[in-house]
Amino acid sequence: MSDLEAILEETRAAIAPKIGTGKVADYIPALARVDPNKFGIAVVDLEGKVTSLGDAHDPFSIQSISKVFTLTLVLCRHGARLWKRVGREPSGSPFNSIVQLENERGIPRNPFINAGAIVVSDMLLGGGTAAVTVDQITEFIETLAHDPSISVDREVVASEIETGYRNAALANFMRGFGNLENPVDQVLEVYFCQCSIAMSCVQLARSALFLAAGGKDPVTGQQIVSQERARRINALMLSCGHYDASGDFAFRVGLPGKSGVGGGILAVVPNRCVIGVWSPGLNANGNSLVGTLALEHLAAKSGWSVFVG
Amino acid sequence: MSDLEAILEETRAAIAPKIGTGKVADYIPALARVDPNKFGIAVVDLEGKVTSLGDAHDPFSIQSISKVFTLTLVLCRHGARLWKRVGREPSGSPFNSIVQLENERGIPRNPFINAGAIVVSDMLLGGGTAAVTVDQITEFIETLAHDPSISVDREVVASEIETGYRNAALANFMRGFGNLENPVDQVLEVYFCQCSIAMSCVQLARSALFLAAGGKDPVTGQQIVSQERARRINALMLSCGHYDASGDFAFRVGLPGKSGVGGGILAVVPNRCVIGVWSPGLNANGNSLVGTLALEHLAAKSGWSVFVG
Amino acid sequence: MSDLEAILEETRAAIAPKIGTGKVADYIPALARVDPNKFGIAVVDLEGKVTSLGDAHDPFSIQSISKVFTLTLVLCRHGARLWKRVGREPSGSPFNSIVQLENERGIPRNPFINAGAIVVSDMLLGGGTAAVTVDQITEFIETLAHDPSISVDREVVASEIETGYRNAALANFMRGFGNLENPVDQVLEVYFCQCSIAMSCVQLARSALFLAAGGKDPVTGQQIVSQERARRINALMLSCGHYDASGDFAFRVGLPGKSGVGGGILAVVPNRCVIGVWSPGLNANGNSLVGTLALEHLAAKSGWSVFVG
Amino acid sequence: MSDLEAILEETRAAIAPKIGTGKVADYIPALARVDPNKFGIAVVDLEGKVTSLGDAHDPFSIQSISKVFTLTLVLCRHGARLWKRVGREPSGSPFNSIVQLENERGIPRNPFINAGAIVVSDMLLGGGTAAVTVDQITEFIETLAHDPSISVDREVVASEIETGYRNAALANFMRGFGNLENPVDQVLEVYFCQCSIAMSCVQLARSALFLAAGGKDPVTGQQIVSQERARRINALMLSCGHYDASGDFAFRVGLPGKSGVGGGILAVVPNRCVIGVWSPGLNANGNSLVGTLALEHLAAKSGWSVFVG
Repeated sequence: MSDLEAILEETRAAIAPKIGTGKVADYIPALARVDPNKFGIAVVDLEGKVTSLGDAHDPFSIQSISKVFTLTLVLCRHGARLWKRVGREPSGSPFNSIVQLENERGIPRNPFINAGAIVVSDMLLGGGTAAVTVDQITEFIETLAHDPSISVDREVVASEIETGYRNAALANFMRGFGNLENPVDQVLEVYFCQCSIAMSCVQLARSALFLAAGGKDPVTGQQIVSQERARRINALMLSCGHYDASGDFAFRVGLPGKSGVGGGILAVVPNRCVIGVWSPGLNANGNSLVGTLALEHLAAKSGWSVFVG
Repeated sequence: MSDLEAILEETRAAIAPKIGTGKVADYIPALARVDPNKFGIAVVDLEGKVTSLGDAHDPFSIQSISKVFTLTLVLCRHGARLWKRVGREPSGSPFNSIVQLENERGIPRNPFINAGAIVVSDMLLGGGTAAVTVDQITEFIETLAHDPSISVDREVVASEIETGYRNAALANFMRGFGNLENPVDQVLEVYFCQCSIAMSCVQLARSALFLAAGGKDPVTGQQIVSQERARRINALMLSCGHYDASGDFAFRVGLPGKSGVGGGILAVVPNRCVIGVWSPGLNANGNSLVGTLALEHLAAKSGWSVFVG
Repeated sequence: MSDLEAILEETRAAIAPKIGTGKVADYIPALARVDPNKFGIAVVDLEGKVTSLGDAHDPFSIQSISKVFTLTLVLCRHGARLWKRVGREPSGSPFNSIVQLENERGIPRNPFINAGAIVVSDMLLGGGTAAVTVDQITEFIETLAHDPSISVDREVVASEIETGYRNAALANFMRGFGNLENPVDQVLEVYFCQCSIAMSCVQLARSALFLAAGGKDPVTGQQIVSQERARRINALMLSCGHYDASGDFAFRVGLPGKSGVGGGILAVVPNRCVIGVWSPGLNANGNSLVGTLALEHLAAKSGWSVFVG
Repeated sequence: MSDLEAILEETRAAIAPKIGTGKVADYIPALARVDPNKFGIAVVDLEGKVTSLGDAHDPFSIQSISKVFTLTLVLCRHGARLWKRVGREPSGSPFNSIVQLENERGIPRNPFINAGAIVVSDMLLGGGTAAVTVDQITEFIETLAHDPSISVDREVVASEIETGYRNAALANFMRGFGNLENPVDQVLEVYFCQCSIAMSCVQLARSALFLAAGGKDPVTGQQIVSQERARRINALMLSCGHYDASGDFAFRVGLPGKSGVGGGILAVVPNRCVIGVWSPGLNANGNSLVGTLALEHLAAKSGWSVFVG
């Protein structure tokens, strides 16, 4: 058993009493019926070596973790023009989100809150169709993951559209401020589809490997984004990746990360590896309860932290 | 000339056209009359070696940078009890600060906004006097800096007290919520005194060296705080160290940092060094305009970033 | 010339220098091209006698004044059940409106802000169609006005729908909180149609006569609403009828009133008469600049005020 | 028994089951120990005739009702200059109060919220002392009440000062925006003293009689304020007299009124009378529970309403 395998086993033992706790997202049936006892974790190192455990190969709804990939894609296409339409600051509570959106005249605080990701969707749409745009996003992730089997869960999409009034409110709000260029329903279709992509812990960790390696896929050698851009995406994940618990995640785990309401978390250890973890029960902040604990334990045991000294 | 000296020279050349720009803080005379053309930078490495340039030995008013030291001291004394009275999340705009303080019933978002630092002052006061508490803070910094000449600028204190209505409002507000235990004027005296401490870039960088070295002063070997705590202070600096420009600083510079309205910035490069920079002109967010540019340039040229990969 | 005619002439002379000032609403073409020099005023007393002047017979877009009629209609149909879904308090600034809507979980502050009127539209819709509901609203106003020629301006409706992103945001927001029961687009169609009703000053004043007469049409003797309900509608107009200038209108004019962005204002003098005034240029609060001045002058000269003593 | 006596008896019977309910203000001992079963009501008509019942002659802490008198006094002294420093709009919830104070740069929304009354205290202070100013306020009320026995309850003052952190926060906040001219502690002393004035229902009603009579004391014939100013004070009471329940009070009672946390309410029936009512238990909005019900019943039975028609 490798050291890492041992640490992962120890992590599983540490979080075992908490498995099944937390509240599974229940705003749509497809999420509500996920088994709350699921737990998987995968670590992919710079050689592409996968160490995993539990349900690390089960696909789940990545939800907001998709925002890391769409941010990367929009930066590839439009570069710094993004920052005229989206900020780079943490957003505070959900309550503050909409207050700030009003106060800041339709400019979302960062690309990892829903409003910001909706602007990113709008930019990715360009003048195109939602279907083509969603295909492009999926293909981009497949390329990153070296896995052609990534797909959108259409049942989740249908439910998201049906219940997505708050996101529709945000989109209309920003359109009213002139910060969306495409028809609201097209933009929302792109947004809901990207949130409905299903991936496993292993796929997630593999697809974000470039963020641990200066923007270059360390296995293939392909430069996905510049080193500077990779650092900056990591910085945004650290500042803004966990909604109003971003500061707490930085404090406890000390790694750039992005969570999704499906119970997944992606975490980057620069120069070393990427971690994907999944457990569906959420804490009060809407982040995976067990996933956060597992990362906290893993980071402490491994010594992985961007703040190490 | 060492590599570092060369990079510092290059940095000075890069920011030279901007020296004297920005707006010097003018809410009190002692700050308003500081020469806007001042610029100093100092790097102290883990052996204690100092590389500096410009006005790096001039003392200036450290203002909010003092919050790093009082946070460290209160954690030494009270540990995690702090987090019952202060949060760990970024605060958004100054406007949002007070909204959030109201919404969150007198619990400030983090120890680096004024309200949070005032709670820290209250905890350091204990049941003691302001004078004794200020002495303790000064002595703590002197110990960290290995320099017994750190002092409080009494002219600045007098002006701060005279004009500090907003901080008095915050303190009374929190007292109304039961989140201050000592008399408001005593707490404010401690707070204003700590902000009025004068230090140079060299002293600043030296005194925070433990944050780059896992909580241990790497020169003397003295463990100031645990490794875990040092990481966490760095995490807080990264998330919350630059008010509502914290996300932007993380994005541009990629290092834990803390700025003060006197024009100073402290930045930590874990495992490597600490940087103190000073230039009085402020940008729109109230952070040193030239200091921020210098750190951005220095980080890019040196490759220093916690997000490097 | 009657006393009232003399006062109206004097009022016209007083406001004459201001005619054409203010900013005509320009968010849709049909409003933007209205002649800014228009000014009309009509007073209808309890015998139904009309005294008018200027462009008092020109139809204009009544916009938010329609909220008085839909509130009356919804109270006739659903009574106090309305108050479970809409409040009765002034809303503060537009900025505060959305903050409060978030803070109060989708319950709008009162039926005269857009969000509140959208809930009223939803209740009027019941399970029916927008077209039938709009016909019912129009017929209700025709009955009140004793004039079968009231109609919806379809060009205005089309423009409202095309540009109404902010109202769409509000509607989706409230739907997300469960405070709308019908499909958002149906509700918005009803809302935009009622805002697009065109009426003249004379028609407006005549149709609200019941509010000056204890809920009974004083000409026909028909009881439209109970006396208590009429008083309460007047109370709401006084508290909330002019957005964030409601307090100022109560202070200056001292009468229950409701303004619309088309430049119309309806004002009720209990026990005496109803006034309709129209001039398209708006003041900074979005209320008719000349219309407000005219009412202030007319109230002062006539001694009409609910606060008279 | 007169008609009015009969209506008051009927009102007492109607509210009897509720006497003793509600929550007595308990933030200071002097208020907390008031007998919750107290209930008094007094009506003073334009001839000065007093009709009263219950504990109508017991003095109680008038608290915020004092704001009506200080507003009147400051208008007498400074006229419209007041409106450069205080607004005339309702304030929404307590939460919104401080948000708005921040958003509107230290200008309180109206003279009946604490922040607004503190600015009024500052203007009354001029360059004088708190003691003299408080004497002037007391004498002004004594003149209005035709009763030289009005006094400040010094025990209440002492408690208010001791616990008044929130008001101290507001005062410092406004001082920081330049909207207070005198030292904060002096201003607060005036403010806390005026709140601590003790008066009975009869005294209250008598002292506000000028507001029912066009600004003239109808008994003595003395013109206290102009007719226009009296109307405007009434308008402000109607719009803003009950904090965030002002709209509801206008809706239910339909009269200009001002409540205090001591359980008193003052209500004006223009051209007819003034009502003072007192019962210490408060409803969720901080207004007298039984007092509000009594006024609602009295207004319904008597037909008194400014919106009558």
